[in-house]
Amino acid sequence: MTVMPKPVPPDALDAIRAIVGPKGWIDDPSDMLPFLKDERGLFVGKAPAVVRPASTEEVAAVMRICAANQIAIVPQGGNTGLCGGSVPFEAGDAIVLSLGRMNRVRAVDAINYTITVEAGVILAEVQAEADRNDRLFPLSLGAEGSCQIGGNLSTNAGGIQVLRYGNARDLVLGLEVVLPDGQVWNGLRGLRKDNTGYDLKHLFVGSEGTLGIITAAVLKLFPKPRDIKTAFVALPGHREALELFALARGASGDQLTAFELIPRIGLEFSARHVPGVVDPLERPYSHYVLMEMSSSVPDGDIGQTMDRFLETAMERGLVLDGTVAASAQQATQLWRIREGIVESQKHEGGSIKHDIAVPVSLVGDFLDEASRQVEERLPGIRVVAFGHIGDGNIHFNLSQPVGADTKAYLARWAEFNEIVHRVVAGMNGSISAEHGIGRLKRDVLPDFKSGLELDLMRKVKRALDPAGIMNPGKVL
Amino acid sequence: MTVMPKPVPPDALDAIRAIVGPKGWIDDPSDMLPFLKDERGLFVGKAPAVVRPASTEEVAAVMRICAANQIAIVPQGGNTGLCGGSVPFEAGDAIVLSLGRMNRVRAVDAINYTITVEAGVILAEVQAEADRNDRLFPLSLGAEGSCQIGGNLSTNAGGIQVLRYGNARDLVLGLEVVLPDGQVWNGLRGLRKDNTGYDLKHLFVGSEGTLGIITAAVLKLFPKPRDIKTAFVALPGHREALELFALARGASGDQLTAFELIPRIGLEFSARHVPGVVDPLERPYSHYVLMEMSSSVPDGDIGQTMDRFLETAMERGLVLDGTVAASAQQATQLWRIREGIVESQKHEGGSIKHDIAVPVSLVGDFLDEASRQVEERLPGIRVVAFGHIGDGNIHFNLSQPVGADTKAYLARWAEFNEIVHRVVAGMNGSISAEHGIGRLKRDVLPDFKSGLELDLMRKVKRALDPAGIMNPGKVL
Repeated sequence: MTVMPKPVPPDALDAIRAIVGPKGWIDDPSDMLPFLKDERGLFVGKAPAVVRPASTEEVAAVMRICAANQIAIVPQGGNTGLCGGSVPFEAGDAIVLSLGRMNRVRAVDAINYTITVEAGVILAEVQAEADRNDRLFPLSLGAEGSCQIGGNLSTNAGGIQVLRYGNARDLVLGLEVVLPDGQVWNGLRGLRKDNTGYDLKHLFVGSEGTLGIITAAVLKLFPKPRDIKTAFVALPGHREALELFALARGASGDQLTAFELIPRIGLEFSARHVPGVVDPLERPYSHYVLMEMSSSVPDGDIGQTMDRFLETAMERGLVLDGTVAASAQQATQLWRIREGIVESQKHEGGSIKHDIAVPVSLVGDFLDEASRQVEERLPGIRVVAFGHIGDGNIHFNLSQPVGADTKAYLARWAEFNEIVHRVVAGMNGSISAEHGIGRLKRDVLPDFKSGLELDLMRKVKRALDPAGIMNPGKVL
Repeated sequence: MTVMPKPVPPDALDAIRAIVGPKGWIDDPSDMLPFLKDERGLFVGKAPAVVRPASTEEVAAVMRICAANQIAIVPQGGNTGLCGGSVPFEAGDAIVLSLGRMNRVRAVDAINYTITVEAGVILAEVQAEADRNDRLFPLSLGAEGSCQIGGNLSTNAGGIQVLRYGNARDLVLGLEVVLPDGQVWNGLRGLRKDNTGYDLKHLFVGSEGTLGIITAAVLKLFPKPRDIKTAFVALPGHREALELFALARGASGDQLTAFELIPRIGLEFSARHVPGVVDPLERPYSHYVLMEMSSSVPDGDIGQTMDRFLETAMERGLVLDGTVAASAQQATQLWRIREGIVESQKHEGGSIKHDIAVPVSLVGDFLDEASRQVEERLPGIRVVAFGHIGDGNIHFNLSQPVGADTKAYLARWAEFNEIVHRVVAGMNGSISAEHGIGRLKRDVLPDFKSGLELDLMRKVKRALDPAGIMNPGKVL
C-alpha cells in the first residue's frame, strides 16, 4: 500500500499534545532519536512527535484525532524488532505512538492460569510477575529485558521455548485493541474455549501494528518448572540432530523445552569472543545440540529420563559425547555458548543474516543445499547455521571470509538473501520464521508469497484500516 | 446478513452436475435427506441438490459457477454439528456441498510430526493413520466415528483432550481453502514458525464455512502416549474440583490429558440407563472427577506421580475417595460413566442444553449462581452440569422435573437459555464454548457480543465474501 506523504496539521498535533500531556509528549529531535532508530541501526526515520499515552483511553483519543485527520501512526513497544517495523519512514509524516507508559499488570488469576497485562509491560516483568505467583510465563528471548509484551504480540515473537509452549500467538487468550477509527475492542476474555464467531485476536497478533494497536492482553500461564536438566551433546552431523529430536520428543514425555543446534564454528566464535565460554568437551566435533527437559514435578524422574535418553542416543550413534549440567550455574555456562553466537559474530566481520523455517524433516536438506550454494558463490564464506532446529527455524547467518572487506561483503546482502530464500521457497518454507516482515522484508515478500495470499491480506487490511493509517508501508 | 431467496438457475445446476459427475450429484429428495437434516433433528432444510466433489479442483469449479450466479453454498462435513450450521434453510435456495468424497490422507511426515489430510477424512481415521505412524493426533470427541476433519476445523472442535493439546485450531499448521470466488488458497505449510504477514488460517478455522471451504489441512502430531493412568475420584463439592485441578496441573508435570466433572446425578443417570455402568465407589458422593494423566515415556513414573498426587489431595481434603484403573479395560469402564451422561439424559425426559465457558476460577461461582436461578424459576428442575472443567467449559444441561410434561418443558428452552447466558455474560464468559453458533445461536449472539465485535466480524465477512454466498444466515 503506497502512502502519500503529507505534513501533519499543526492543530491536530496540538490536540494530541493536550490529550497525552507533557509526560506523554516528545518532540525534541535528540529525545526522539531512540524512538526513530531501529534496533539494528538500519533505519533512522523522522516524526513530528513521539507520543506516549498513559491509558487505553488516551490511545483511543489520539487515534480518533489521527483518523479524523488521516494521520499515520507507528505503534511502538520496546523497539527491539529486527525488521524495522516499529520505526517511522524518513518522510516524517507519521506519529510514533509508544506504549511504554502503559505498563501495569492488571490482574493475575493463578487458578485460571492467566495474567492480564498492559502492552507496555517489559517481557521480563511479565515473567517475574508470573513467578511471584508460582506460575510460569514461558515466552523467552534475547531482548526480554527491554522488549514489551505488546510488541511481542504484534510480531508474534518466538524464542527458545516455542517447542513446548508455542509462539506468542499461542500464549494469548484475549486482547484489548484500539482500532484505526479510535474505537476500543474489549476482547479481554480469559477463556480456554470460545466458539462464538471469528477469532479476531489472531488477526491482530502478528500483524505488526498494521491493523490496530494492542493495548492489553490476557496471557496463559503454566505450572512452574521445578526440575530442569540441561545437556550439551556432540553429534556426527546435523542430520543426526533431527533424528535425535524426533527421539527426544517421545522419550521426554514431550517435556523438551529447548533443542538448539550449534555448529562447531558457533562454539569457536563464542569461545573466542565471549569471556568465560569454553568447550565443555574434550575434543572437537562438527555439531552440537543444547537441549533442555523440564518438569513441574519436583524431585520427579526427569534426570533419569534424560540419562536414559542419552544412553539410547549413544547406542544408536546419534550422540558421540556430551555433558549434563550438574547445577543451575553449569546450565547457565552451557547456555552462554548458544547465546554468545550472535554477539561473537560481530567480532568476525560482516554477517549476512537469515531467519528461515522449513518443515523439521527438511532441515538437513536445507542446510546442505543452502550451504553448498553460498559456498559456491563465495568460497571462504563461513556458514554459521544455528538455532531452534526443533521448530525447523534456523538462523542461517553467513560470516564474511577471513580477511575480506566488510563493506564490500555486506553490499552483497540482497544477493545472498536471494540464494537462501530460493532454497527455502523450494521447500515450502518461511523467509521470516520469527522476526516478521516490517520494512526490511516487505519488498521481497511478493517474491515468496502467492499473489492470492497477498491479496487476501490486503482485503483484510482494507476492511479494518480503510484509510491506511496504521503503520503504513510495513508488511504490505 | 439477510439473504434474499431466489431460485437457483437450472443451467447453473446443469453446469455443476457436469463438473461433479453422477457420483457427486444427489437430487433425489429421500437420498438428500441425511444432508438436509441436522444432528439434533432441530432443522430440516431444502436444497435443489447436494453435490459431492471428489477433488479440490472440482470444489473450485463448483464455487466459480456459484460465484458467477450468486448461488449460496452450504459446506458440509460429517453433519454432526449441534448448532445447525451445516444444513441449508427451508427456502431451498442454497446448494449443499459435502466434502465426504475428499477423504485421502495426502501425506504423513513422522519427523516433522505432521499429517496432511483432505477435509472429508473421518476424524477417527486421522487418529488411526497417526497411530499407524507411531504418532498421536489428539483431537477426540463423541462423534469421532462419523465427523470429518474439515468440519472439525470449520467449527474449531474441542473435546476431551483440549486441556493438554488445545482446540482444533491449535492443531493446524496449514490449510488449503477454496475461496468464495472459486480461487484456491494453498496455505498447506507444515511450519512451526512463519511470521510473514497475517495469519489467514485462523480466520477460516472456526468460521463455520462462512468465509470459504477448507479442502485440506496440515495437522500437528504428537508422541504417542505409552503410559496412561485414569482415576475416578469423589470430592466434597464442585469448588474442590477447581482446587484439585490447579494442584493437578503442577503435580502432573502438565501431563494431565483429561479432567472431567461429573455430578452425582450424572453418575446416577448413567448407571440407570447405560448397560454395564456401575458406581465404582462404595458409598455416594456429591461430585466426582474423572481424570487422566498420560506420558509418552514407557514405564516412566506417571503411575507414581498419580499416586503421590492423590495422596496429597486426600491429605488436603480435596479428595474423599477414589479408584485408579488397573487396566485399559477398567479405564474404559470409568470413561463409560462420563460418556453415558449425554445418552442417558434422553431417557430422563426433556433436556435443555448449554455449552458455556467461564474463566476456570469462576466455574464454582457460575455453578452456584446458575443452579440457584434455574431452580428458583422451576422447582424440581434437575441440573446436570458436567464436562471439561479444566477448560472452564461446562455442559450445563437441565433435565425436566420428574413427571413434568416434556413438550411444555422444552417450550421454555429460550427462557432458560436466557437465564444461564446472562450469568455467563456477567462473568465475561462464552455462550458457545465448543459447539459454535451456526443457525441455533445466531439470533442470540448480538445479545452477548458487543456491536463493535460483530461489526468487525461483518467487515471481515464482507471483505472475503462480498456476495454473501458462503453459508449465509449462519453465525452472522
